[in-house]
Amino acid sequence: MAKPLGFEKPLGMRDILPDSLAKQRHLERALRHCIDRWGYEEISTPSLEYYDTVGAASATLTDRMFRLLDKQGHTVVLRPDMTTPIARVVSSLYKDVPLPIRLFYQANVFRAQEKEAGRNAEFFQTGIELIGDASEDADAEAIALAVFCLRAAGVETFRIAIGHVDFVDGLLEEEIADEELRSQFRNFLYERDFVGYRQLLATLDMSDDARNRLEALLRLRGDKGKIAEARELTVNGKARRAVETIASLWDALEAYGVTEDLLLDFNLISNLNYYTGVVFEGYAADLGSPLLGGGRYDHLLAQFGRPAPATGFAIKMDRLLQVTPAMKGQPTTRVLLCYTVERRREALAEAQLLREDGLIVVTRLIGNEDELSDSEKAGYAKVICLTKQEE
Amino acid sequence: MAKPLGFEKPLGMRDILPDSLAKQRHLERALRHCIDRWGYEEISTPSLEYYDTVGAASATLTDRMFRLLDKQGHTVVLRPDMTTPIARVVSSLYKDVPLPIRLFYQANVFRAQEKEAGRNAEFFQTGIELIGDASEDADAEAIALAVFCLRAAGVETFRIAIGHVDFVDGLLEEEIADEELRSQFRNFLYERDFVGYRQLLATLDMSDDARNRLEALLRLRGDKGKIAEARELTVNGKARRAVETIASLWDALEAYGVTEDLLLDFNLISNLNYYTGVVFEGYAADLGSPLLGGGRYDHLLAQFGRPAPATGFAIKMDRLLQVTPAMKGQPTTRVLLCYTVERRREALAEAQLLREDGLIVVTRLIGNEDELSDSEKAGYAKVICLTKQEE
Repeated sequence: MAKPLGFEKPLGMRDILPDSLAKQRHLERALRHCIDRWGYEEISTPSLEYYDTVGAASATLTDRMFRLLDKQGHTVVLRPDMTTPIARVVSSLYKDVPLPIRLFYQANVFRAQEKEAGRNAEFFQTGIELIGDASEDADAEAIALAVFCLRAAGVETFRIAIGHVDFVDGLLEEEIADEELRSQFRNFLYERDFVGYRQLLATLDMSDDARNRLEALLRLRGDKGKIAEARELTVNGKARRAVETIASLWDALEAYGVTEDLLLDFNLISNLNYYTGVVFEGYAADLGSPLLGGGRYDHLLAQFGRPAPATGFAIKMDRLLQVTPAMKGQPTTRVLLCYTVERRREALAEAQLLREDGLIVVTRLIGNEDELSDSEKAGYAKVICLTKQEE
Repeated sequence: MAKPLGFEKPLGMRDILPDSLAKQRHLERALRHCIDRWGYEEISTPSLEYYDTVGAASATLTDRMFRLLDKQGHTVVLRPDMTTPIARVVSSLYKDVPLPIRLFYQANVFRAQEKEAGRNAEFFQTGIELIGDASEDADAEAIALAVFCLRAAGVETFRIAIGHVDFVDGLLEEEIADEELRSQFRNFLYERDFVGYRQLLATLDMSDDARNRLEALLRLRGDKGKIAEARELTVNGKARRAVETIASLWDALEAYGVTEDLLLDFNLISNLNYYTGVVFEGYAADLGSPLLGGGRYDHLLAQFGRPAPATGFAIKMDRLLQVTPAMKGQPTTRVLLCYTVERRREALAEAQLLREDGLIVVTRLIGNEDELSDSEKAGYAKVICLTKQEE
């Protein structure tokens, strides 16, 4: 016989085995049930998209996409996100559907990995998009729904941090003329590298007042009181408008009754060059990376010819699995029902009755009762044997 | 502004919009519930696999696979089926799990399309694999479970046709010495081209007896009585053994009480060079192509170094959608709850109460009641407005 085939999988690809998958499905159902009630409808888009449409408009770097040539010679990509395909649908198949449009998805997305680092190249997300509403109430709806989703999933301790891209941008523009330098500061914030930020700040020749303002930005993380602190720091229109947006948003979030799970973070930058307004990230205790990310992206739809404001979020299912308790409730009872051929009809009918009663029943033809080993009985709550009756 | 991006999707790729997707999810739930009770556990495998492992072992032609190079320079494919990845898992991660192993999946698979012909390049399947049981009771379990699945999905009129690859092979070997010629006959049967089969038969110089036998093969489609007819046609060991296997299988299927939904078809060939024993296909009224296919594949696991008999089936969800009735039951009531900013808190609390009562509630901030157009109210069973109260 030829040498057996290998078992290897491409870098970052993985199998999800039954126990883990059962929990994922359970969480997906809980999230679906929650999102559904808020009027969002599920949509599915293809795994493959043209690079020139969805690939080019996506926030993901081209180098991180899986690319291939189709049989017609076009470059296609494995979808790097679901937001861009949904923008495509809203601008084409949905072009006559009036705004606002609420859609959700439970889907896998792809990110090519360079080297062995335990990062997934394919991962599952549950997310929503609210398209066509520019109000702070729309931002508040997305954030409140995110809170309800994490509660529905059973995440015990979490906080959603809220910021606004224009606050950081505006404040930096007030104090630093050089765009390249501002970009370095933004990068430190994006990487959460406050040490690097402070070191860079120390090298600059500027007034104490300006230096204090840029230093104070790093401390703008906390409760509602940070809104007043942020207002004190701002001079020009852009950053000040961002503060007022956050203030209105907070009022709406108080109306939703969810502020106990929220945190203001004026130095939050979620994704460089993609979000255009309010941004937010969800963190759970003991998890370094956010398990949820979202925000306002008012420029994407215009790229598909239907300009519209939009907001949304995506929950990373892998991370959600890590921070949620084991499934509650009794697992379904598993029964092994063995039979010899004489009693097959009786056994199979009994199996079906037990299944209708809600049990899991595995059936098995045997020669006699002795052939069942203990290891074959393991994993079953009950073993029933219907064998040839003694004369 | 730059020219908007296009809306095109790669050939054979499609969006699934909410109404259609809701029905697909409903069917997936019904199938999952049924399959789960028979002791099958769900598994997920990656969308991308190495060509040298899963691609090479798959029953799909290489030319029909989506292939790409990963960053390490290996050829990877979008999975063409789920049976081969599951064989990989059973031989690696599951190598210490005792047989038989029962697994199921609800997943998309890929098939590259050459030209515009309305064929899907990505399609969804629900399927099962029963690995490690060579008995006719295992074949019967797979077929009976297929029947229960189609019933659970609400398919009103269907038949599952059952055959055996060795019957056709054996009969042809008895009468025709030339393998190339036998292969032509098998192809006609695979294509269901009985006219071509008869024309080829007419060109051959053979005894009347042999000709009658090969002609009779085409009529071996019907109820249990066909077993006796098939027995009469067979001389050598291979075809005769296939008839006896079918006879034993039929006994087991009678024990399952599902034979009213079955049909014997001794000239059925499901997939050239892949199946090794009993094969079956499910047909629904008014649908030309099978909506379900399955059978025994006893050689696949050995390719991964863990030789084991196996059987299974896959249901094509697209076709199942076509032959099942619209979802029953009342759709969930959709409510539009509008509010002015003064009554926001009250409105959002009310929305959440209605959601907890099981309604779908979309909320909307408005300036005043008059700004709502009729088209904006369309699609809602009820519109509630909580606006500034008159002084």
